[in-house]
Amino acid sequence: MNSWIEIPANSDFTLHNIPFGIVQHTNKKVVATILGNTVIDLHALYNTGLLSTIYGLHGNVFSNNYINDFIALGKPITNAVRLRIIDLFNETNTNAEHRTVLQRCLLNTNEVKQCMPVRIGDYTDFFSSIDHATNTGMMFRDPANALLPNWKHLPVGYHGRSSSIVESGVNFHRPKGQSKTDDQTMPSFAPCKTLDFELEMGFIIGKPTELGDSITTGNANEHIFGFCLFNDWSARDIQKWEYVPLGPFLGKNFFSSISPWIVTLEALAPFRVDSYEQTPQVLPYLAFEGQNNFDVNLQVYIQPENSTVKCVSESNFKYMYWNVNQQLAHHTINGCNVNVGDMMASGTISGPEPTSYGSMLEISWGGKRAITMNDGTERKFIHDNDTVIMRGYAEKNGVRVGFGEVKNKVLPAK
Amino acid sequence: MNSWIEIPANSDFTLHNIPFGIVQHTNKKVVATILGNTVIDLHALYNTGLLSTIYGLHGNVFSNNYINDFIALGKPITNAVRLRIIDLFNETNTNAEHRTVLQRCLLNTNEVKQCMPVRIGDYTDFFSSIDHATNTGMMFRDPANALLPNWKHLPVGYHGRSSSIVESGVNFHRPKGQSKTDDQTMPSFAPCKTLDFELEMGFIIGKPTELGDSITTGNANEHIFGFCLFNDWSARDIQKWEYVPLGPFLGKNFFSSISPWIVTLEALAPFRVDSYEQTPQVLPYLAFEGQNNFDVNLQVYIQPENSTVKCVSESNFKYMYWNVNQQLAHHTINGCNVNVGDMMASGTISGPEPTSYGSMLEISWGGKRAITMNDGTERKFIHDNDTVIMRGYAEKNGVRVGFGEVKNKVLPAK
Repeated sequence: MNSWIEIPANSDFTLHNIPFGIVQHTNKKVVATILGNTVIDLHALYNTGLLSTIYGLHGNVFSNNYINDFIALGKPITNAVRLRIIDLFNETNTNAEHRTVLQRCLLNTNEVKQCMPVRIGDYTDFFSSIDHATNTGMMFRDPANALLPNWKHLPVGYHGRSSSIVESGVNFHRPKGQSKTDDQTMPSFAPCKTLDFELEMGFIIGKPTELGDSITTGNANEHIFGFCLFNDWSARDIQKWEYVPLGPFLGKNFFSSISPWIVTLEALAPFRVDSYEQTPQVLPYLAFEGQNNFDVNLQVYIQPENSTVKCVSESNFKYMYWNVNQQLAHHTINGCNVNVGDMMASGTISGPEPTSYGSMLEISWGGKRAITMNDGTERKFIHDNDTVIMRGYAEKNGVRVGFGEVKNKVLPAK
Repeated sequence: MNSWIEIPANSDFTLHNIPFGIVQHTNKKVVATILGNTVIDLHALYNTGLLSTIYGLHGNVFSNNYINDFIALGKPITNAVRLRIIDLFNETNTNAEHRTVLQRCLLNTNEVKQCMPVRIGDYTDFFSSIDHATNTGMMFRDPANALLPNWKHLPVGYHGRSSSIVESGVNFHRPKGQSKTDDQTMPSFAPCKTLDFELEMGFIIGKPTELGDSITTGNANEHIFGFCLFNDWSARDIQKWEYVPLGPFLGKNFFSSISPWIVTLEALAPFRVDSYEQTPQVLPYLAFEGQNNFDVNLQVYIQPENSTVKCVSESNFKYMYWNVNQQLAHHTINGCNVNVGDMMASGTISGPEPTSYGSMLEISWGGKRAITMNDGTERKFIHDNDTVIMRGYAEKNGVRVGFGEVKNKVLPAK
């Protein structure tokens, strides 16, 4: 399936993908999609009349600062829009009039600013990778009993901060805060000494529930609009001192970042793989059918100032012990409601090998092992002026669906 | 200072108060205030022209589902509106034409539905009462070292769920979920057996910050619009099993409730009292000047089905170890941004005496001691069909400023 628009080899944004996001051009924000290096302004596309076959679609959802109003229309409409875009831009559409009209909706990626795609309501972060949970348990607790007693019975999660989730390209200053090392008697205040990334994926709620209702593993797919890359930036020294007994707070809420294009659940369908075999058996409300994991290759790169990128992790979304259907079923089993635009993140996605660990905490094994950058400098955690880049893509039988990247630079503390 | 509108004795809503909220009447939601049992429709008031002296005020902020747009105008405007309302309804305003016009803006409380006042962005819950922290530490950890090492160095807090915060009057079904008692080898799934309230107060952010910026204890008051009562409903058995290591999640996020009128920081000014004397000395960013605690009497009542209310707790907001200025300074010291409408809650407010404990967990000391209701039944935690009511008011020199109530009934699990 090819497009009549040129798509570079190995582009994440093939005709199979058609993700949704927000771009700004000429001081106006619109909902858009992307094919190769070409952005398609969906408000302009709507105005061509070529989406008029889709009943219930209104143009005002596309002239918008966020994709929330669009995704709130529901999957019958959003899926129809995606499929219609695939038809219109497919090389099999040889209608010359179509092509002429559609050309007016196109923008080059360097003509636009990619913006935060979603107005996030609530944000939840899970802790669903067994290798990550085991690694941190081994480091901080008992290597022989790395997983806490509840871990294999429920997808552990906690609420995070929505206000500080921003898009790729935004840079930030190293956070400051309280920490206390084991040999200090009193805490001290300083810029974070152990700044870290966490390689995660996030998904966006597309269909809300009422307070008191629950989502099941069987109908969770109806509620999942799509996915993005998620960097859960973490200040390890701040987190270590603060997190008992109520969980992470300032160690996490200074900055989180996402890739700007939301890849739909439907675009990822060809890349479903078997889920993790769970032992002991989970409670009935967490039982599920089908393939609910996704084979998405993930990489993390560090780029020191004036140097080239160094790949420090190659992981995969398929390593998740708890799948997204289980996460949603658990989150709502007590009647907690979800809203359109809510974000759920996976937790750090580590694989079984050290090369697939999803945080510097694990890669450096608590700061014990340094890795060498291309300029010869060493890293145990993230330095000032380092840029961290995460990329992700699924590929099978010549079909590629990717996420682009989330890229942020750490500036010195203010 | 009296009003020409009749205000019953002991009303929370005196001319000194003038809180802000949302009421619905004739299918329309408007911003309103309340005097005694009389609701004042502020959109109607704006349309009289009697607020026209306030530069920068727009009528559309009052014809609104939430007070966010109003409070986003900033304190110079919102304070001017409050003071103007006080002037207009003061008995010293003998202008007959005013009174005739103003009569058209008035509604009886039983003519309107009180609605959720604020569209909450992010919600943070602190853990700032030393008596509560000590009590829970004694019960669950070491009675000799009840407070964890970080507790006196920083206001411990965590992110909560915004979507499930609702207004007084909404009832809910007992949540279900996983729990595991110490003598069980595997967790089980059931309706919560130990449902609890937590007596808290919350405050609403009125002035935002940019990501990367920090609020100081000295300028925190500029960012605090006002306060309400907050019931942080908790499922103790669910919470106990899930909360290690990332904090409370399903044990809290099924339901939280607030009183519907937001009492401004300015209305509480006469009730400022000395803050807690903190030892050891806090880090410089948490140091503060002035009286940042508030003498607000708080009560909790349980009303079993077909019985009368029984007061089970009499506490006070003044018992807080960490004050709201310190909470905001800590929350933002790492650059975390806040938005208009964000909610910050205090954590359970317990006083030093058992009669002032702010949760059944403490009142029943972990389920060991029952209290007797007026119908002779006993409570260690909250039963189905119980209604829990929290009330709060400040009173000094004959001036009373109150919060009304937050009242919710627990229905049996679905």
